[in-house]
Amino acid sequence: MNDRAQSGNNLDPWFHHYAERAAGLRASEVRALFAVASRPEVVSLAGGMPFVSALPRDLIQGAMDDVMRTEGPVALQYGSGQGVPKLREQILEVMALEGIRANADDVVVTTGSQHALELVSKLFLDPGDIVISEGPSYVTAMVIFRSYQADIDHVPMDEHGLIPEALREHIARLKAAGRTIKFLYTIPSFHNPAGVTLSWERRVEILQIARDNDILVLEDNPYGLLYFDQPAPDAMRSVEEDGVIYLGTFSKTLAPGFRTGWALAPHAIREKLVLANEAAVLSPSSFSQLVISKYLETADWKGQIDTFRGVYRERKEAMLSALGEYLPELTWTNPNGGFYVWLTLPEPLDSKAMLPRAVKELVAYTPGTAFYGDGGGHQNIRLSFCYPTPEQIRLGIRRLSNVLRGELELLDTFAGTGSLTSVRNSTRFSLPPTDLN
Amino acid sequence: MNDRAQSGNNLDPWFHHYAERAAGLRASEVRALFAVASRPEVVSLAGGMPFVSALPRDLIQGAMDDVMRTEGPVALQYGSGQGVPKLREQILEVMALEGIRANADDVVVTTGSQHALELVSKLFLDPGDIVISEGPSYVTAMVIFRSYQADIDHVPMDEHGLIPEALREHIARLKAAGRTIKFLYTIPSFHNPAGVTLSWERRVEILQIARDNDILVLEDNPYGLLYFDQPAPDAMRSVEEDGVIYLGTFSKTLAPGFRTGWALAPHAIREKLVLANEAAVLSPSSFSQLVISKYLETADWKGQIDTFRGVYRERKEAMLSALGEYLPELTWTNPNGGFYVWLTLPEPLDSKAMLPRAVKELVAYTPGTAFYGDGGGHQNIRLSFCYPTPEQIRLGIRRLSNVLRGELELLDTFAGTGSLTSVRNSTRFSLPPTDLN
Repeated sequence: MNDRAQSGNNLDPWFHHYAERAAGLRASEVRALFAVASRPEVVSLAGGMPFVSALPRDLIQGAMDDVMRTEGPVALQYGSGQGVPKLREQILEVMALEGIRANADDVVVTTGSQHALELVSKLFLDPGDIVISEGPSYVTAMVIFRSYQADIDHVPMDEHGLIPEALREHIARLKAAGRTIKFLYTIPSFHNPAGVTLSWERRVEILQIARDNDILVLEDNPYGLLYFDQPAPDAMRSVEEDGVIYLGTFSKTLAPGFRTGWALAPHAIREKLVLANEAAVLSPSSFSQLVISKYLETADWKGQIDTFRGVYRERKEAMLSALGEYLPELTWTNPNGGFYVWLTLPEPLDSKAMLPRAVKELVAYTPGTAFYGDGGGHQNIRLSFCYPTPEQIRLGIRRLSNVLRGELELLDTFAGTGSLTSVRNSTRFSLPPTDLN
Repeated sequence: MNDRAQSGNNLDPWFHHYAERAAGLRASEVRALFAVASRPEVVSLAGGMPFVSALPRDLIQGAMDDVMRTEGPVALQYGSGQGVPKLREQILEVMALEGIRANADDVVVTTGSQHALELVSKLFLDPGDIVISEGPSYVTAMVIFRSYQADIDHVPMDEHGLIPEALREHIARLKAAGRTIKFLYTIPSFHNPAGVTLSWERRVEILQIARDNDILVLEDNPYGLLYFDQPAPDAMRSVEEDGVIYLGTFSKTLAPGFRTGWALAPHAIREKLVLANEAAVLSPSSFSQLVISKYLETADWKGQIDTFRGVYRERKEAMLSALGEYLPELTWTNPNGGFYVWLTLPEPLDSKAMLPRAVKELVAYTPGTAFYGDGGGHQNIRLSFCYPTPEQIRLGIRRLSNVLRGELELLDTFAGTGSLTSVRNSTRFSLPPTDLN
């Protein structure tokens, strides 16, 4: 033991050496659940893993063989920090499905869209800056924002997504308090975790609010093409070119194992993004990019997305039907795409406190608290229908209803309050009010 | 045009929105050269691309097929933020070749070792912190350190690597000035760009200096296994477990296209590294990891490293022999491994100013200025022998000698000074003196 150990934390001799920003890095509840959810007897409604078994594995393998045979030395080598030009052209075709017109020169390929989020945050966030996001919001985006010492301000949603009037109020309050708002982070289509979609009228209105207030919009759209009945409205980037950084990914329409996503950014920001990408990873994987490019060239990738839509639609219906059967007194969102349903519990219940009992009953979910940066979400649960089969979903919801009833009985016994039947069923999406922290 | 454009930079309406740290992100000279070097008529002695054509492509393709057939859904899915357990065990075998004993639980797989550098920097560097490194040092490491607003302090080397006495002096001076030294970043074996190797005695001595001064050592070892005659001394991590973060990669012993490297860190730091990795990319590519794991399991990977050694040894000899023939008056390092020779020019010449003429003469190199954070290196050139064939290397050096002679004639004409023959040939490695900036 040396001086270092005595002056620091007992378990970590380097405790006092970390950067200030490292204090914000802590294990998220979603991550901690991965270990639990991997036990085969547990029905996991927690993770956001796409159902990759629905992929045409022979076609992907064919693409790999083709790449290795014809472009092996390129696939195995370093590439450019911006990504393979041909793939960037193909990405334009993918984005065109949501109304986006762009130049391949403004696309930056990243190690999943997660890394685009990281790079944009590194480029823009100073300590004390504000990121506005929906409340709730994507957990690992918030982990990144916090890791750059930004504060997150949650603006509430309803069934049509982020509420423009609330956004205006929050911006005014933040500006009055002298805060610097760096961007609005939004998942407009099939929101994670809320499952709602921002209407077209609101997209246009919110872009105008951002423009009026000189706020950059970070549009995260992993699920946009995975709609069930109606396509989502066109991307916000289809309306506004100069004020939107758009993030896309192949993780949901193809496979996360390749870690390939992208950012489409205004030209000057794109230049900085490429530099940040090079500093972080030199170049995204050439091999992954070439295989995806070959897959897009040779396979019916739009047909494959249709297949995914069918799989996820069936699973969502199984989940909603099981909720209707086993938990008719509760409220939940009815997503028209994506991976998630957002469940609201009766007031006395606490989704985070209840989780250990749920795992004991062999069902896992993500407590709503994971999706708030300000302590909210105790009354909510995110349920994922992307990975388990319809039968598993049904079983999982049945187990969840037992857990809920057990918890309420316990509360009744000790406090004489709370009963599932006291809660109205409603299709209205409601969130606890959020305030600035 | 809106208000934003008028208040910002003419070319970038978001100019005033970037984080302070983004100011440190600028295009490195090495990166800018990539475009030039890719023209087929130019002999590039600039890039650090491994010669992947020497790889057994059928074996790699076999590993891919095997993975897709037997573990397809795992390879295509998200993985853990720490990396595939089996690969982490195999990484222990790789590191054992350089005397390292460790636990797979302390290995974190990253998107190339570049990303490990990024993550460690994000965890440790506050604005104004000092990173001590050799002078010269790896350019993209310095880009990262600067991107977290750290200052780089270069300690000189000689032919046995970093000079311990100079390190002591620098630390004392920095401490007296009230600076916080976060880590010593070092490439002890077959240094990039200097080509020298830190002797065993100095490794032990430098670790003791670090321990005495409570400074973490960041040991970057991409080239260690690529020795020519004698293996490099054992890794610094083989001596010291608690004070060293060791970085390794498959980019040089296998292929960079998979973007797979790793960090071996003291346990508490490892925990934070996993969280930072998850925040940045969720998980490193499952596919890349499984393919590398299968390759290590089924192929003669040590024999393949021997093949690489033979290729690079031949190329280094071609380079040194061409230097002896065409530029006998100059000095250069004689590396016993790795990818690089470090050339010292006669005083009136400026490697950076001379580069456009070199490219006109169809030879590219990296000017020494790229490898200093403090404006040094004008008298130096990094020559890479890893990628071009021996014939191309010979041609490249001949062209370079023409460029040098042309520059000196020009200087003679206008100033009457400078002549190649006035410079002594010497095997002694010398660098311009470095001072704190």
